[in-house]
Amino acid sequence: MNHKITQFEKRIHEAIDQVLRQEEPHTLFDPVRYILSMGGKRVRPLLTLMAADLFDKDPEVAIGPALAVEIFHNFSLLHDDLMDHADVRRGMPTVHCKWNANSAILSGDAMMIESYRYIAKVPAPLLPEVLEIFSRMAMDICKGQQYDMDFEQRLDVTEAEYIEMIRLKTAVLLGSALKIGALLADASPVDAALLYDYGIHIGLAFQLKDDLLDVYGDPKTFGKKIGGDILANKKTFLLIQALRNADGAQRSALEHWLSAKDYDPEEKIRFVKNLYDQLNLRVVAENLIEKYYLASLDLLSSVRVADERKKDLLYLSESLMCREK
Amino acid sequence: MNHKITQFEKRIHEAIDQVLRQEEPHTLFDPVRYILSMGGKRVRPLLTLMAADLFDKDPEVAIGPALAVEIFHNFSLLHDDLMDHADVRRGMPTVHCKWNANSAILSGDAMMIESYRYIAKVPAPLLPEVLEIFSRMAMDICKGQQYDMDFEQRLDVTEAEYIEMIRLKTAVLLGSALKIGALLADASPVDAALLYDYGIHIGLAFQLKDDLLDVYGDPKTFGKKIGGDILANKKTFLLIQALRNADGAQRSALEHWLSAKDYDPEEKIRFVKNLYDQLNLRVVAENLIEKYYLASLDLLSSVRVADERKKDLLYLSESLMCREK
Repeated sequence: MNHKITQFEKRIHEAIDQVLRQEEPHTLFDPVRYILSMGGKRVRPLLTLMAADLFDKDPEVAIGPALAVEIFHNFSLLHDDLMDHADVRRGMPTVHCKWNANSAILSGDAMMIESYRYIAKVPAPLLPEVLEIFSRMAMDICKGQQYDMDFEQRLDVTEAEYIEMIRLKTAVLLGSALKIGALLADASPVDAALLYDYGIHIGLAFQLKDDLLDVYGDPKTFGKKIGGDILANKKTFLLIQALRNADGAQRSALEHWLSAKDYDPEEKIRFVKNLYDQLNLRVVAENLIEKYYLASLDLLSSVRVADERKKDLLYLSESLMCREK
Repeated sequence: MNHKITQFEKRIHEAIDQVLRQEEPHTLFDPVRYILSMGGKRVRPLLTLMAADLFDKDPEVAIGPALAVEIFHNFSLLHDDLMDHADVRRGMPTVHCKWNANSAILSGDAMMIESYRYIAKVPAPLLPEVLEIFSRMAMDICKGQQYDMDFEQRLDVTEAEYIEMIRLKTAVLLGSALKIGALLADASPVDAALLYDYGIHIGLAFQLKDDLLDVYGDPKTFGKKIGGDILANKKTFLLIQALRNADGAQRSALEHWLSAKDYDPEEKIRFVKNLYDQLNLRVVAENLIEKYYLASLDLLSSVRVADERKKDLLYLSESLMCREK
C-alpha cells in the first residue's frame, strides 16, 4: 500500500459521492449515480491529483478536473457498453441492461455535460487551455471507439492501426489526465508535455495488458467475462498478430471461427486461446508492454522535478502493469 | 423577406459547411455532416447573431457560439430521433435509419464535443460565463427529454408539468442562444437576462405551435409525418388537455386508443384529431401561444436599445409564430 495514493483515493471517493447527488429527474440521474458508484480503479482522477502533487502543489486545486476526467471516462464506458452489447461491467449489470437503451443514451449524454461542468471549475486564466485539452481528448476517444467498431468488420487491421486506435481510445485519457493536473500546478509546458507522453505510453501498455487479461486473466478478479473480446471478434493485439502470423491451416480455421454464427462460446474461446499459445503471442504482447513501459519511465525521468517526488507515480504505474484486473 | 436575416442565414450556412469538413474517420463524421447539411430553419444560430446585432456589435463576434448552439441542437435531434424511433427528419431518413443505432450514438457524442469546441472560441474573459450558460442549457435539454420520455408512461401529466418540460427541452435553447449573443456584444446583465426570458417565451409558443402542426400541419410543408405525436402517445399540450377535459365516454375511447397495440394508424390519428376538434383544443392552444407571444413582446420592449434595432428580432419571432413547418 502507498499512503499518499490511498489518501488521494479516499478524496476522490468522497468527491464522486457528491456528483449530481440530489439532482432530478431521478430517471435521468439514477443511472449516472449507479455507474459512478460501481467503483473501478479511479486511475484517471488519481493521475490528475498525482500530477499536481508531483509539482508540489496541493492536489485539491485539481479535484474539479480530476472528477471531470473520471465522469467522462464513465460516460464513455456507458455508451461503449451499449454499442458493444456488453452485459456486465465490474461484475455488475450495465446500465442498458439494468434500465434500457434510452436510459444509457440520455444518462450518458448528461454525464458528458456534467464532466464539462467540472472542467469549467478550473481557475479562469487556465480555462481556455484546459478546455482545449479536454475537448481534444474527448474527440480522440470518440474517434478511437469508431475505429474499434470499424475494425470489427475488417480482417486486415495492421499493428500500427491498432496502436493508433488504442492511443485514441485509451491512452489519450491518461495523458490528458496527467497534463491537466500538471498545468493546474503551474508546470512548465515542457514538463506538461512530457507527462502527457508518459501517460500515452502507460496507456498503451495498460490497454495491451487489458487485451491479455481478457484471455489469460483470472475470472475471479477480472470483473468482465473472460474471452469477451474473442466472442465479439474484437481486433485486439492478439487477434491481429494471430491473423498475421498464422500458417495456412491455422488461418483458415481461425477465419472459420470468426465467421461462425452458431457455436459453443467456450469452444471458440478454447480454440482461439490455443492458437495464441501456439503462436507464442502472450510473450510477444508482454514484450511490447515492457517496451512501452520502459519508454514511459524514460519520459518520466526527464520531467524536471526531484526523483523523490516521482516515486508515487512510479508506484502507481508499476501496479498498473502488474495488475490482474 | 428581411435582408439582414437573409444575410445572417447565408453566413451561418457558409460556416456550417466548414464544420468537421475533412475530419477522419469518415464513419464517425459522415453522419455529422449529413444531419448538419439537412438544413432546417437555423433559428437558434440566427438568434445568437441577431442578439449581438441588437447591441450594435458586428455579429461575427458571435459566429462561434452560434455554431455551437446549432451543432448542439442537431446533436440533440440525432439522439432524440434514435430514442423516439423516428424514421424521418426534415423529409429525410434519420441517422440511425440511414446508418445504424451505434452511428447515431457515437456521431451524436462527437457533435456534442464539437459544440463545446466552438463555445471555447469565445474571448477568454467571457469564457467562464458563456460556458456556464451553455452547460446549464445542455443539461436542461437532457432533463427535458427525460421528462418527455417519462411522460409517455403517464396519463396524469399536468399542464404545469408539460410547460416545464418544453421550457427545458425547447425554450432554454432559444433563451441561451440569445443570451450568449447578447453577452458577446457586451450587453448589460439585465438586458441579457431579459433576452433570455424573451427567448423562453418565444420557445414555449414555438413548441406549442409545433404540437399544433403535428396534428393540423400541411404534410407537404411540415417535413415530419402528420400525427407522429399521436401515434407515439406523446403527451403534447393537446393530449394533456384532452385527457383532462374529455367526458366519460370520450375518455374511455381515448384510453382505448392510447393502449391499443394492433390498429390502423390513420384511424387512430382520425379519432384523436376528431376528439381535439370536439374539445375545441386548437383554439385553446392558439390562445396560449398568443399569451406567451405577447409576454415575449413585453420582455423585448424592456430591453434598453432603440426600438428601431429590435425590428429584425420582431420580424423573426412573428414569422416563427405564423410558420407552417
